[in-house]
Amino acid sequence: MLNDVNGGQSDIRKKLENIVEGAVFSGIIQFLILASAVAFVLETEESFDKYETHFHIIDWGFFVLFTAEYILRIYTAPVKKDFIFSFFGIVDLLAILPSLVLIPGFRVLRVLRFLRVFRIFKATRFILAVDRMIDALGEVKRELLALVILSALFVYLAACGIYFFERGTQEEAFGSIPDAMWWAIVTLTTIGYGDVYPMTTGGKIFTAFVALVGVGLIAIPSGLLASVLTKARVEEELSEEDEK
Amino acid sequence: MLNDVNGGQSDIRKKLENIVEGAVFSGIIQFLILASAVAFVLETEESFDKYETHFHIIDWGFFVLFTAEYILRIYTAPVKKDFIFSFFGIVDLLAILPSLVLIPGFRVLRVLRFLRVFRIFKATRFILAVDRMIDALGEVKRELLALVILSALFVYLAACGIYFFERGTQEEAFGSIPDAMWWAIVTLTTIGYGDVYPMTTGGKIFTAFVALVGVGLIAIPSGLLASVLTKARVEEELSEEDEK
Amino acid sequence: MLNDVNGGQSDIRKKLENIVEGAVFSGIIQFLILASAVAFVLETEESFDKYETHFHIIDWGFFVLFTAEYILRIYTAPVKKDFIFSFFGIVDLLAILPSLVLIPGFRVLRVLRFLRVFRIFKATRFILAVDRMIDALGEVKRELLALVILSALFVYLAACGIYFFERGTQEEAFGSIPDAMWWAIVTLTTIGYGDVYPMTTGGKIFTAFVALVGVGLIAIPSGLLASVLTKARVEEELSEEDEK
Amino acid sequence: MLNDVNGGQSDIRKKLENIVEGAVFSGIIQFLILASAVAFVLETEESFDKYETHFHIIDWGFFVLFTAEYILRIYTAPVKKDFIFSFFGIVDLLAILPSLVLIPGFRVLRVLRFLRVFRIFKATRFILAVDRMIDALGEVKRELLALVILSALFVYLAACGIYFFERGTQEEAFGSIPDAMWWAIVTLTTIGYGDVYPMTTGGKIFTAFVALVGVGLIAIPSGLLASVLTKARVEEELSEEDEK
Repeated sequence: MLNDVNGGQSDIRKKLENIVEGAVFSGIIQFLILASAVAFVLETEESFDKYETHFHIIDWGFFVLFTAEYILRIYTAPVKKDFIFSFFGIVDLLAILPSLVLIPGFRVLRVLRFLRVFRIFKATRFILAVDRMIDALGEVKRELLALVILSALFVYLAACGIYFFERGTQEEAFGSIPDAMWWAIVTLTTIGYGDVYPMTTGGKIFTAFVALVGVGLIAIPSGLLASVLTKARVEEELSEEDEK
Repeated sequence: MLNDVNGGQSDIRKKLENIVEGAVFSGIIQFLILASAVAFVLETEESFDKYETHFHIIDWGFFVLFTAEYILRIYTAPVKKDFIFSFFGIVDLLAILPSLVLIPGFRVLRVLRFLRVFRIFKATRFILAVDRMIDALGEVKRELLALVILSALFVYLAACGIYFFERGTQEEAFGSIPDAMWWAIVTLTTIGYGDVYPMTTGGKIFTAFVALVGVGLIAIPSGLLASVLTKARVEEELSEEDEK
Repeated sequence: MLNDVNGGQSDIRKKLENIVEGAVFSGIIQFLILASAVAFVLETEESFDKYETHFHIIDWGFFVLFTAEYILRIYTAPVKKDFIFSFFGIVDLLAILPSLVLIPGFRVLRVLRFLRVFRIFKATRFILAVDRMIDALGEVKRELLALVILSALFVYLAACGIYFFERGTQEEAFGSIPDAMWWAIVTLTTIGYGDVYPMTTGGKIFTAFVALVGVGLIAIPSGLLASVLTKARVEEELSEEDEK
Repeated sequence: MLNDVNGGQSDIRKKLENIVEGAVFSGIIQFLILASAVAFVLETEESFDKYETHFHIIDWGFFVLFTAEYILRIYTAPVKKDFIFSFFGIVDLLAILPSLVLIPGFRVLRVLRFLRVFRIFKATRFILAVDRMIDALGEVKRELLALVILSALFVYLAACGIYFFERGTQEEAFGSIPDAMWWAIVTLTTIGYGDVYPMTTGGKIFTAFVALVGVGLIAIPSGLLASVLTKARVEEELSEEDEK
């Protein structure tokens, strides 16, 4: 009879699991995540300060809904531990938990709610397109790592160089190498905010050199990705031809 | 006899249709569209205010010409409804109609004239090159959609992050997440106007990270396009070889 | 006897032609062109104003040398007309002629000397690498033309849009569509000087959309070029394999 | 017996060489290089001025360690000259030597310590990924050289052009061609700091043209790299298929 009860419970769990993992439930949750993200964004807008109480109620609504979902997911998970300590399980907990904190000083943790948006990946994970791109990136991950190291090295050298040229003239903007690194990042990514730029002739010539190398560095990931994606497509093509 | 008249009308319609769809008529219309776009642009220039009456006459001339063309196109269309509710039929109407409005408050609708330029696509539609590019984009449309979602997600996360770092220091520029999103767009596209940029050390380190990921994100569409265009060209090549 | 003289003259012409077309003469001329370009650049520098007379002498030296070269090239050209009306013949003339003008008002034409640098192409013309790139560009010239038309159209639409959003707030920067086009160019190429940028919420949202499409547009030439260069390389590969 | 001693010494040298060339020693040195780079960066930070003596001690520590390593490397090198005059041998010396200089005026040479970071390449040299990229770059080195020449030519022509348009209006920013070259570099790399930008209508139209060509130029290295990397990957693919 105990077995029977377990069986009944297990049946309910099974049915609920099917619902939770189904497209309809998933779609509703996706919509709620987007809605909570929009609410989170608007809440920070000063012009909406007068609706503070409304936002408070909306926040509590989302808290209740997502807590219910979290409990449901634990209940329906075949192995509870696996869910709780999975990436999405932790994101879920981090996104709910801080709302519980009533100690004023820790209210700041509520900003962790924004983490919830990561769960969008759960949906996109099943989109074939993302998988293909991740596969492509995976194939060149050693090249990408080498590129990151080279870029870091180049930022360091560019910062040392500009520090040498500009520290005498611009005490504030290039007064230390960490300051110069900010310039290096802004220049090499070609953002160029305009808050820091070289003013000495030497610094300008050095920047010309750095900028040209930077443009070359930026070309590398694009070229790498093109090569690996092309290979994947040509492979598909060839295997299709072989089948014929 | 009635049949005869219809036949005669149909003949005229047929002849006119051939003229309207012909290269000469199409070329003239293309030229008029460009001319009206140039007139529209110059009209807004303050230094041409003294020629206001001239522009007024030119506008009326274009209005008469394009209205005549619109009526002609309806008349010559084999199925009138198909033309009126087609994309170009609606663009044509939206570009003429507002000029008719005499009520002063609605004169602002006349800016819709700029829509006329969309009709350039009618000509380019037949250029093989554009077709090939659209085909290529069509093949990676799921990847592009995934990329747009990922970018939107990244803009959201970058805005949340910089809001956390900078709101204390720069109340005006980073006072809310929508404000921070403006920064995220300007930074991730590497435009970097310089109206908003981080000032705290934390914000700068965060920006360095965001900028590097941003440069990587920008590399993806270029790589995707390269792969799909290369595949198309290699396919052509192989099929040419097979024919030999 | 007259024939003999002609033969002798022809011999000298032939020998001179061999010298003029040879690698040594060509190398010296290349060096002189670079030197005259450097002199032209430095001459404009205010801090070198005290060396004005030196620059004057250098200019005259270059004038004499390049005039001598021009006469020599005409003399040694198998068909004189062909050289005089060739691209490099005209560049040569335009680069020398203005120096002769003694009328003060026309001295400004001397800036045409900078055209001389185009002759560097004469050397690079024979570099295989440039030829290969020009071949590749030639193969996609219709796509590139379509891209230029699309970009121009997009600049027009972006300018019309931002003019609608910003003209009320920023009378000076967005007061007319030509002004707005300047913004559109600076934004779509991701330069972002920071002299003009949207300030209204509507303008910022519109810019976000424009910037994202702009980043996509920039990805197209890179992808096109990659595809056509890859095809050229794979073709080479295949033909090499066939030979084996 | 002398032979024996030499044999013994040689044995020790051999053993030490194995240790020096081993993964553990190499890892420790890599870590020390990174640590010394971080120390070098932080030392310039004004807020750490109070820890000056600590940094002094740390510097001496690194000096002793790297000097010991340098002596060890010379001792264990099979052919001493080869190491001393190798790239890494010279970098090692340049990074240590200046610390010895006690004459105050030459203390500035101590900045050469930053060169030490180049030794990171020693480790990455063995990473296959970098080798593959260098191979790819080597195959298009003639195209890249042609591209550098074309870019330099374009910077020159852009600078001459903007100088012509803007020198009358902006005496300070475009007062000479070298000044205009700074603008050309900042614009063509799409950095756009915003310190210099055209203000005349002619200058703006010229900039629009220059910027569009600049965006095209930037697309070339990415396309080149994609083509050569793709070829390498397709080759691998084909040779794998042949083996089957």
